[in-house]
Amino acid sequence: MSDAQLPPAGLPGLQCPIPRSEYPQVTLAHGGGGRLTHALIERMFLAAFRNPALEPLHDGAVLEVPAGRLALSTDSYVVSPLFFPGGDIGSLAVHGTVNDLAMCGAQPLALTAGFVLEEGLPMDDLWRIVRSMARAAKDAGVNIVTGDTKVVDRGKGDGVFINTTGIGIVPEGVHIAPARARPGDRVLLSGRIADHGVAILSVREGLSFETTIESDSAALNGLVGALLGALGERVHVLRDPTRGGMASAVNEIAASAKVGLRLEERAIPLAEQVRGACEILGLDPLYVANEGKCLAIVAPGAAEQALALLRAHPLGREAALIGEVVADHPGRVMMRSRVGGTRIVDMLSGEQLPRIC
Amino acid sequence: MSDAQLPPAGLPGLQCPIPRSEYPQVTLAHGGGGRLTHALIERMFLAAFRNPALEPLHDGAVLEVPAGRLALSTDSYVVSPLFFPGGDIGSLAVHGTVNDLAMCGAQPLALTAGFVLEEGLPMDDLWRIVRSMARAAKDAGVNIVTGDTKVVDRGKGDGVFINTTGIGIVPEGVHIAPARARPGDRVLLSGRIADHGVAILSVREGLSFETTIESDSAALNGLVGALLGALGERVHVLRDPTRGGMASAVNEIAASAKVGLRLEERAIPLAEQVRGACEILGLDPLYVANEGKCLAIVAPGAAEQALALLRAHPLGREAALIGEVVADHPGRVMMRSRVGGTRIVDMLSGEQLPRIC
Repeated sequence: MSDAQLPPAGLPGLQCPIPRSEYPQVTLAHGGGGRLTHALIERMFLAAFRNPALEPLHDGAVLEVPAGRLALSTDSYVVSPLFFPGGDIGSLAVHGTVNDLAMCGAQPLALTAGFVLEEGLPMDDLWRIVRSMARAAKDAGVNIVTGDTKVVDRGKGDGVFINTTGIGIVPEGVHIAPARARPGDRVLLSGRIADHGVAILSVREGLSFETTIESDSAALNGLVGALLGALGERVHVLRDPTRGGMASAVNEIAASAKVGLRLEERAIPLAEQVRGACEILGLDPLYVANEGKCLAIVAPGAAEQALALLRAHPLGREAALIGEVVADHPGRVMMRSRVGGTRIVDMLSGEQLPRIC
Repeated sequence: MSDAQLPPAGLPGLQCPIPRSEYPQVTLAHGGGGRLTHALIERMFLAAFRNPALEPLHDGAVLEVPAGRLALSTDSYVVSPLFFPGGDIGSLAVHGTVNDLAMCGAQPLALTAGFVLEEGLPMDDLWRIVRSMARAAKDAGVNIVTGDTKVVDRGKGDGVFINTTGIGIVPEGVHIAPARARPGDRVLLSGRIADHGVAILSVREGLSFETTIESDSAALNGLVGALLGALGERVHVLRDPTRGGMASAVNEIAASAKVGLRLEERAIPLAEQVRGACEILGLDPLYVANEGKCLAIVAPGAAEQALALLRAHPLGREAALIGEVVADHPGRVMMRSRVGGTRIVDMLSGEQLPRIC
């Protein structure tokens, strides 16, 4: 989405609140805990994230919570480059952690943001990232309630690393865990795979295609909320296939639940252009990261309804039934290929795509 | 504390669980999300932090919480060097976030840990750090329940950065906020200032003294718990004077509560050796970071009892009454010096001590 498409209300302005004439770049003193740190926090972070819990600027935020199950998830984001088609490190840091909470069955309650800035980072870039975080958080319906900023010397970081940690409430009747996959369960996927990893790699490798391949980075809490609201505990497992891709996610589930998984290659949505890019890059799309997709493993009788619910959501229009859970070959994932043979889908070993998230 | 003094029970062993013959250093593949990432998580992080919430190794942890006020705090640690007298980045990352929760009046419930590792970090160093985190968490009575590991290319990080985020419960009847400082309130300090910053700087600058100056890095939740348990809402403000030192902390409180603070320099505990080191390093100890001290602002009638409670705790033996809150000069901190004059204690401006935490 271009900046021109930004909804105007409630979002911070395009103009960096710390003008170039004042500080064109982040300096070590911005992390020293004195005046400059305070100015950065107030003029940039508070301006972008403004909400009642953040206002007191204390050592932490205090929130009222109901009794029950609280999900807690953390992720550090080190993606390179910082800006890529379909997103940037800021939106990714919000989406990724909101999604991790959603994969626990939780609706997000609040996020924290911890920045490690490299001396020399252009202040305009930081503002673009912070603004993108604010927009992503607003779209996902969650506030960034407390944060932290550190600055490291030039050459000891890489522009910016962001940690987001989120808390969320798991509604009653929702019981999501990888270990809950049971023989007979159906495996659904919310859409096309490999867009995120290929978008990042294309930029890094300087590849260009007829149309730009965009990251699928998106917050899945709405999609997951719709699924859980209707199906409750008939949803057994949720997983977002990020680093390591779909292959790693299904292997983790198979290992955790001590069940087998059988997948149909032809059922797995994959854009033709992304398939082509994977061939050029020498990648198997099953191992490429996604940032706006989820796997859902549901009770056998709930599959049809789950598929309809996913497809009714803007982020699940291309959702598909891609396989089932079996009692055979526990811990292993088998896939029937397009040409008919069956192969083991193994967990990724060794290096494939560093700094994809 | 040397490794020999480690209590043996419940703590991970000295030996790095990933032997040098296998992987002497962290590689990019350890962050790729595949087999090596899983091996690192299971053999190192799970081995060190083992607890029931962490076991499922899902995208997040799920915890039962009572209804009430939840404190949430985040901090990224980028201290350089990674190991210093009195601690390391691992123990600091636990103490710092436990303390931020304590300064909200909360008892810690759980921590998250997010690692950004630089390719080439010796595996033995990582184990030493992880082990130190495990010990610090155990000592503070809190579990590390979920985490994340990323690896960045050589030259794009600095060994290891750690984010810890914590949640804690604020007991009923506890109301801590910088804005609650009121004229007449007493200002207490739990012990000697400037040890942490001077310990780090001494190592960086290659200074040596008769005895080694050690960081005061420690978890204050026990000390704060004792204070709040006895005095409840008569404790108005708690603050750990970390980055920016005591001067920044008292200025933040004065600004937030729109009150004045009047301090007595002679009452502020400071080790003779640390004072000397500050002179050599050209530092004002009031601006130097602490990692195991807290300021407590209490109702006038509670000061004596508060002081006795602090002094009864091993981490507060040298606690002192250092000043009071006044209605005059709101937003300003004045200090009566040892020689009798009065000066403004301003907020630190510009760079002083980068990467102290």
